[in-house]
Amino acid sequence: MKAVRMVVGAGMALAVLAGSTVQAAPKKELPPKPSVGDIVKESKAADWRPLDLENTLYMDLPGGRVVIELAPTFAPLHAANIKALAREQYFDGLVILRSQDNFVVQWGDPDEKNPRQPKKAKMTLPGEFTVPLKNDTKFTRMKDVDGYAPQVGHSNGFPVGRDPKAGTTWLAHCYAMVGVGRDTDADSGGGTALYVVTGQAPRQLDRNITVVGRVVSGMPLLSTVARGPAPMGFFDKPEMQVPIKAFRVAADVAEGERSNFEVMRTESATFQKVVEATRNRGGPWTKVAAGHVDLCAAPIPVREAK
Amino acid sequence: MKAVRMVVGAGMALAVLAGSTVQAAPKKELPPKPSVGDIVKESKAADWRPLDLENTLYMDLPGGRVVIELAPTFAPLHAANIKALAREQYFDGLVILRSQDNFVVQWGDPDEKNPRQPKKAKMTLPGEFTVPLKNDTKFTRMKDVDGYAPQVGHSNGFPVGRDPKAGTTWLAHCYAMVGVGRDTDADSGGGTALYVVTGQAPRQLDRNITVVGRVVSGMPLLSTVARGPAPMGFFDKPEMQVPIKAFRVAADVAEGERSNFEVMRTESATFQKVVEATRNRGGPWTKVAAGHVDLCAAPIPVREAK
Repeated sequence: MKAVRMVVGAGMALAVLAGSTVQAAPKKELPPKPSVGDIVKESKAADWRPLDLENTLYMDLPGGRVVIELAPTFAPLHAANIKALAREQYFDGLVILRSQDNFVVQWGDPDEKNPRQPKKAKMTLPGEFTVPLKNDTKFTRMKDVDGYAPQVGHSNGFPVGRDPKAGTTWLAHCYAMVGVGRDTDADSGGGTALYVVTGQAPRQLDRNITVVGRVVSGMPLLSTVARGPAPMGFFDKPEMQVPIKAFRVAADVAEGERSNFEVMRTESATFQKVVEATRNRGGPWTKVAAGHVDLCAAPIPVREAK
Repeated sequence: MKAVRMVVGAGMALAVLAGSTVQAAPKKELPPKPSVGDIVKESKAADWRPLDLENTLYMDLPGGRVVIELAPTFAPLHAANIKALAREQYFDGLVILRSQDNFVVQWGDPDEKNPRQPKKAKMTLPGEFTVPLKNDTKFTRMKDVDGYAPQVGHSNGFPVGRDPKAGTTWLAHCYAMVGVGRDTDADSGGGTALYVVTGQAPRQLDRNITVVGRVVSGMPLLSTVARGPAPMGFFDKPEMQVPIKAFRVAADVAEGERSNFEVMRTESATFQKVVEATRNRGGPWTKVAAGHVDLCAAPIPVREAK
């Protein structure tokens, strides 16, 4: 099917077919190269790590399960507090209350006047917008230019930016990254309102809000939530809300009910091959290799563990 | 509502709150600045242009209308052929047949063995992946760095890349951009299979496929289509397909049934203010201005004409 091949593949190098005035272009094929799928298929067991059950959340929605990996290195206070909220069943029975096209889907308490109060967990925490570079020992840098950060790359399965002069590093707002809603005050978030990126990376939020993790499975359950008609995608009718059946720390879930995923180790040589396969695709479908990959366009492979 | 303010706003400049080891940061507020919404509100009539009815398509789905603006400057043959297809009612009764998360939604003929044939319109055309720089007289350059193109900016309401050395320019694969599915051969597309970008910009497709336009209204009707379970997001069951009720050139639609949109002129000073407002947001919500905006993160305002 024509359609099937629209996406990957490769072909003529520099095939500049120029519209109304078609330029005669050298029809030299790009040599075939392993695709991301090929590299994943040929990877070794050591290239993968299982999710840490203590830092994995399951959000069970009517349509299925969303699996979130927390990043305590980058937001230790918030990761701990969100787990405490989960263990209080804080989110159970709350809802997805916002879906803004090409931006975020958000969940929490829709009752602004009389919001649910945590029992022992905190409502607010100091913002964790960046952490000292030294806190992150797993950074692998990408050579690709980035407009939002002096350096970009990956750390333990998460996309990150860093600023060596300021001595800071932070999680980047790529697709599927999970952040903590806050009010105007930097310290007004705590984890009771969470959002996930569902469109073009809103990197202007980097260093302005606490990012706590990444959805590693179940993104379609969030990305297809009907967009809200009120300003910023909020739902103006309760029937638009999607109920959260349960929100649990994976370690607290019975073994037989757990999801079992592995993430490719971003410090592995295999992951570097994945990035390179995205940066410079081979033929025959691709005619011009990009020679570049944006931080948020580099896939971080996840698979079900055997 | 805490949630509401998660998105825009501004505040403390360089407020580096650093996780477990919180760094005392200068709590200097960013000065407030006009937002994109403020600039749109204060814009003048001359900052906008109406859609050209002859280069506007309406795709009517069960949930409502998708409005696509064609870019004949960048894909003259394909724009003309897609209009010819529309005028033959080629797409009427065909379907959305693919939805791949964080990538594209695609429509066309799901019958691979016996696909609908155009009457006079063409099935395939020479690829229009780039056009000569001289064909584009409306380019306004962004100063922001880009990894995929030597220069980026906007032309007549579309995001574009350009390469002065090669003498070429092309439409960039940003969210909501519409492209032409093709097979491995560069000249195997023609417009019978179309797709729209619904996730992070797949800029690696730039210069590899013909891009014909942009969805200026109705993106949520496409972006929320349930993701397909087959490889690459194809639907494996006919009941997943979303039928296309009608696909028309706006000029052919009775006046009372037309949609009436205006696009901000990207060559206007007002649009430059929009880009700058996205590049450097003011306080009090924003604590750190990005100092940069990616091509595909700069909004191109559209509004209903009065």
